[in-house]
Amino acid sequence: MFYQTIDILGTVAFAISGVLVAMDKKLDLFGVLIIAFVTAIGGGTLRDLLIGNTPVVWMRDLTYVSTIFISVVVGILFANQLKYLRRSLFLFDTIGIGLFTMIGVEKGLQAELSPIMCVALGTMTASFGGVIRDMLCNEIPVIFRKEIYATACILGGASYFLFTQFPIKESYAYIAAIVVVISLRLLAVRFGISLPNIYKKPKEL
Amino acid sequence: MFYQTIDILGTVAFAISGVLVAMDKKLDLFGVLIIAFVTAIGGGTLRDLLIGNTPVVWMRDLTYVSTIFISVVVGILFANQLKYLRRSLFLFDTIGIGLFTMIGVEKGLQAELSPIMCVALGTMTASFGGVIRDMLCNEIPVIFRKEIYATACILGGASYFLFTQFPIKESYAYIAAIVVVISLRLLAVRFGISLPNIYKKPKEL
Amino acid sequence: MFYQTIDILGTVAFAISGVLVAMDKKLDLFGVLIIAFVTAIGGGTLRDLLIGNTPVVWMRDLTYVSTIFISVVVGILFANQLKYLRRSLFLFDTIGIGLFTMIGVEKGLQAELSPIMCVALGTMTASFGGVIRDMLCNEIPVIFRKEIYATACILGGASYFLFTQFPIKESYAYIAAIVVVISLRLLAVRFGISLPNIYKKPKEL
Repeated sequence: MFYQTIDILGTVAFAISGVLVAMDKKLDLFGVLIIAFVTAIGGGTLRDLLIGNTPVVWMRDLTYVSTIFISVVVGILFANQLKYLRRSLFLFDTIGIGLFTMIGVEKGLQAELSPIMCVALGTMTASFGGVIRDMLCNEIPVIFRKEIYATACILGGASYFLFTQFPIKESYAYIAAIVVVISLRLLAVRFGISLPNIYKKPKEL
Repeated sequence: MFYQTIDILGTVAFAISGVLVAMDKKLDLFGVLIIAFVTAIGGGTLRDLLIGNTPVVWMRDLTYVSTIFISVVVGILFANQLKYLRRSLFLFDTIGIGLFTMIGVEKGLQAELSPIMCVALGTMTASFGGVIRDMLCNEIPVIFRKEIYATACILGGASYFLFTQFPIKESYAYIAAIVVVISLRLLAVRFGISLPNIYKKPKEL
Repeated sequence: MFYQTIDILGTVAFAISGVLVAMDKKLDLFGVLIIAFVTAIGGGTLRDLLIGNTPVVWMRDLTYVSTIFISVVVGILFANQLKYLRRSLFLFDTIGIGLFTMIGVEKGLQAELSPIMCVALGTMTASFGGVIRDMLCNEIPVIFRKEIYATACILGGASYFLFTQFPIKESYAYIAAIVVVISLRLLAVRFGISLPNIYKKPKEL
């Protein structure tokens, strides 16, 4: 019930971020639907395929597809209002990666993978939908741009295994890790933090 | 036997559509083979992976690979004749999506998925091979262009569930649904029908 | 033990080839890691997904991820030395496809696939990592360029089934086939051999 709720919230956040990118690109109605769908289920599909959890979850449970449909309708109706808020896309995308990182970690634990692989699975669940969204919309995937993105997922996912060492309820550790992912990404973008450059003398291109 | 025949016919149609696109792009012999192969098995592979039907069907049954090889040889030998017919590529592609939509729906039923998911699976089986073909050949995927394409698969797939409500043999409903997909696509292109635009005031780009 | 060693050597070779391409493109540290990782595990992941061998091997066994990490660190530290050798990238890529072709053939045999499919699986295992590497780095995939590439994998993989007809130890046939792949690619590039053109009168583009 708890995990299902988090999963649906992440699906809504990513579906709306897909709608915003697709409308920005002036895609037709079918294009908007496809981009919203792929953004919302892309990461989870890759995760389920890699761990062999098939048929993939959105094929067995119509909740996901219904959620995406409703999100698209709401997203299209309120697109203008969301545009006025300026940072809507960034916000929905950031909420999405926070929620989906932990969904991925949880599925990794269920598949009895090592903590390192759980974190990797969480990062893929969180970032792959956005990568496909950006590729289909002909943008450089956000994950390859300067900002801390995957790094937020990795550190947030790792923080969960730290939090579970303390005598607190598991769902608190879970929510704390989601907050870590979202905070790291917000702080990184706010203060323009990026990964160090590994080239001593970068040439002018 | 019946489904196998439909599947092989669809494989032939898509393999030849792949040959035509690849030759149009002046790819070498290996490139033509790869594009034909990917076009013919791309949709079915995605479908089998999503429902966990592995090893994927063309790995277990050499009929598919043999069919594609023969189609490529025939396609190359008669490429000039096919070019004269002008609409050959469009025709083979349209036959392919009609046949593969229903193969996907059938596999969804076997995996006991809901009708909505069966239609989604049919649409993916029909369109994904063409999407990869177009991406590898550096074309905008046909599915994102104006014409009704996936919509034909969706409506045709849905019509099958309508037809099975009538007291007719299942294989008749099956063939009727294939005819619906093909007819919708032919009509849409013939009369220039496309999806409505969701932007009230489209800007000039 | 024997196969594991070959697999790890191939992983090292492909990880370093990924580092070299990524550094050439001036990607940041995270980008270099991702490209090295994807190059090294891309082919094996596709293979495991197609035959339904999930969770995919690098998720269950941390040896792969550790190997890639160490290769990336070593690759970055010695990148300048490797650049002086000029043909480093070509060399590591060629060693990688030799080793991974036979790993793929072996996995196909374990899944009781026909020899043709084993060779296809070997070719995919060997070439898919490089295809993703080149796509992410915005290069035309090496497999689609003029040189004999996949052809070396196909002929080398097929030679294994020839060698096993002789009364020699299986691991000798295995190593001989690896040598065939590497030699064919080296010879093809050295003597500029490529596949014949299927167009009688190629137009100037």
